[in-house]
Amino acid sequence: MNTADWKNKLAQVQPRNEEAAQQASRHVNQLTKPLGSLGRLESLAVELAAMTGEPFPAVTPPGVLVFAADHGVAAEGVSAYPQEVTAQMVANFAHGGAAINVFSRQIGALLHVVDVGVAVDVDAPGVWTKKVRPGTASFLRERAMTREEAEQCVQIGFESAEAIIDEGAKLLIVGEMGIGNTTASSALLAALTGAEPDELVGRGTGVSDEKWQKKKAVVKEALSFHQPDAGDPLDALSKVGGLEIGSMAGAILCAASRRVPVLLDGFISTVAALLAVRLCPVSAEYLLGGHRSQEPGHAFALQTLGKEPLVDLGLRLGEGSGAAVAFPIVEAATRMLREMATFDEAGVSSE
Amino acid sequence: MNTADWKNKLAQVQPRNEEAAQQASRHVNQLTKPLGSLGRLESLAVELAAMTGEPFPAVTPPGVLVFAADHGVAAEGVSAYPQEVTAQMVANFAHGGAAINVFSRQIGALLHVVDVGVAVDVDAPGVWTKKVRPGTASFLRERAMTREEAEQCVQIGFESAEAIIDEGAKLLIVGEMGIGNTTASSALLAALTGAEPDELVGRGTGVSDEKWQKKKAVVKEALSFHQPDAGDPLDALSKVGGLEIGSMAGAILCAASRRVPVLLDGFISTVAALLAVRLCPVSAEYLLGGHRSQEPGHAFALQTLGKEPLVDLGLRLGEGSGAAVAFPIVEAATRMLREMATFDEAGVSSE
Repeated sequence: MNTADWKNKLAQVQPRNEEAAQQASRHVNQLTKPLGSLGRLESLAVELAAMTGEPFPAVTPPGVLVFAADHGVAAEGVSAYPQEVTAQMVANFAHGGAAINVFSRQIGALLHVVDVGVAVDVDAPGVWTKKVRPGTASFLRERAMTREEAEQCVQIGFESAEAIIDEGAKLLIVGEMGIGNTTASSALLAALTGAEPDELVGRGTGVSDEKWQKKKAVVKEALSFHQPDAGDPLDALSKVGGLEIGSMAGAILCAASRRVPVLLDGFISTVAALLAVRLCPVSAEYLLGGHRSQEPGHAFALQTLGKEPLVDLGLRLGEGSGAAVAFPIVEAATRMLREMATFDEAGVSSE
Repeated sequence: MNTADWKNKLAQVQPRNEEAAQQASRHVNQLTKPLGSLGRLESLAVELAAMTGEPFPAVTPPGVLVFAADHGVAAEGVSAYPQEVTAQMVANFAHGGAAINVFSRQIGALLHVVDVGVAVDVDAPGVWTKKVRPGTASFLRERAMTREEAEQCVQIGFESAEAIIDEGAKLLIVGEMGIGNTTASSALLAALTGAEPDELVGRGTGVSDEKWQKKKAVVKEALSFHQPDAGDPLDALSKVGGLEIGSMAGAILCAASRRVPVLLDGFISTVAALLAVRLCPVSAEYLLGGHRSQEPGHAFALQTLGKEPLVDLGLRLGEGSGAAVAFPIVEAATRMLREMATFDEAGVSSE
């Protein structure tokens, strides 16, 4: 694998196409409805036109990539679930029984699961096995991964997104599975932004008060031990990140390079997006807020990216599930643009 | 038509089925996800079980009824659009070009348009013509309709919902078209609740400051002239309501009598729901908040009903469009319940 690939392609990420946006905007104002009365759907339609460069953008079928990996830091007692659940859930994805399978079927999504570092071998049909290493090291005491491994994760994510886009995906959702990954995401978010860990660390899958305190202490201790360089995103990823988080960032970078909109999921997906934006700032122009997670760091990560979520349903599951639930709103925006009659076409008085 | 029909059927409206709700709730807690991590989707699933009496409720296909009628009060200069737009939009619905057509296709909904009182004859294929009268009188100076006509509207709504439910609709959305109907809805909401018109009257389709002041004055003057009886919903409907608003209430009452959940749209749909609840309080148990409209009276109407909307996207179009956009979230809740694997089935450790 040539780890230089994804870096070379970042130069290809283009700014949004303002001409397509203006064409879409003019069309929206001719549709048979009072001006502005479809609110956020109207601005979404214009954003999607700008991203794709098409005045009548398509977002179906969407593509969902779920990256799975384990976290050495799970051994520090920061999660409500044992590490073996990562592999068990990958098998559940492979058999179609997890939330992201259900919601992907509902929205007609292409879905692939990528094992970038589950600790054990997973016997799960259809899963793309691209293990960089069998889980990270516990970053409390050593680097989560080497810098080379960090680059490999990003590369695998980039290639996975290329594959699903080549298969036909018109919008990308990146999800994840990895026991311990809200701890890694909190540490990485703090490393990239300098924010106080106490304000970012939440209860993840639902830890007790005691484990929550432990989780905060672990994040603070790790940051103080590693002193990650906020100006060097790969340094931060390798020191306190996760294998799936790096891959999610890579997938987002690929989507941006292909003008494919990315619909953000919850906390981990949004931290991965921030990592992508630190690696390639213009990629921010291809991100759409999906849902607002209950994880406290999520609001901060969204705010840092300047993104507003579409729905706020108290979700905190990950896997890409919140983005999949929000997706029909994005589809509605494109259908409005493509299918509604204009005042002229319908013979309706516009004022 | 026997106007006593719908009244007799109100006695059949049953409270929610708590046993089905408990079965659904227990099942949700066995699904492969951290407890409570699907937030609002979990409570929605339990509510739908309680409404339908089925532990694994279905909501597809949904049914959308759009009731259209004209308003004499439109002549007082309270709308941004001329009255002829009602008939033009009915033709647009018939040809599939309006927002509600587009979003209904997206969600696979059955859709029927019912003319309960458009001022002119509409040549529109497929529209159910059930005109009670060609628009209401301007309620600034006289009753909008007689009490008998008010009962007829409710009856037509009830029968229309029976027809779409018999056709297969598993969830009901009621929408409307009627230039001037935010004025009538504001007056009716004030009449039913005693709230101050100034706090309820909004800009509807987007009127100027001048028309907005006029609209408030019209509502206040009408209420002071008619003195509608808050304890007699049909008195209020006949004095300051609208033909389509009465029909929407009738449709909601029918859905409740058939244990079919109702997903509320915006301001007018929610005022109609309040009218239904005043006619039959237990029907409130079959209502789900859909979206939060920009119309100021909507938040108050939702609060009066004790309902929380699912999405807040700055919509203010009506037609049932906001409910249709919110519907996939309701569908996601039922799919979660029906399709996700349990911890046992998937062999995933639950803690």
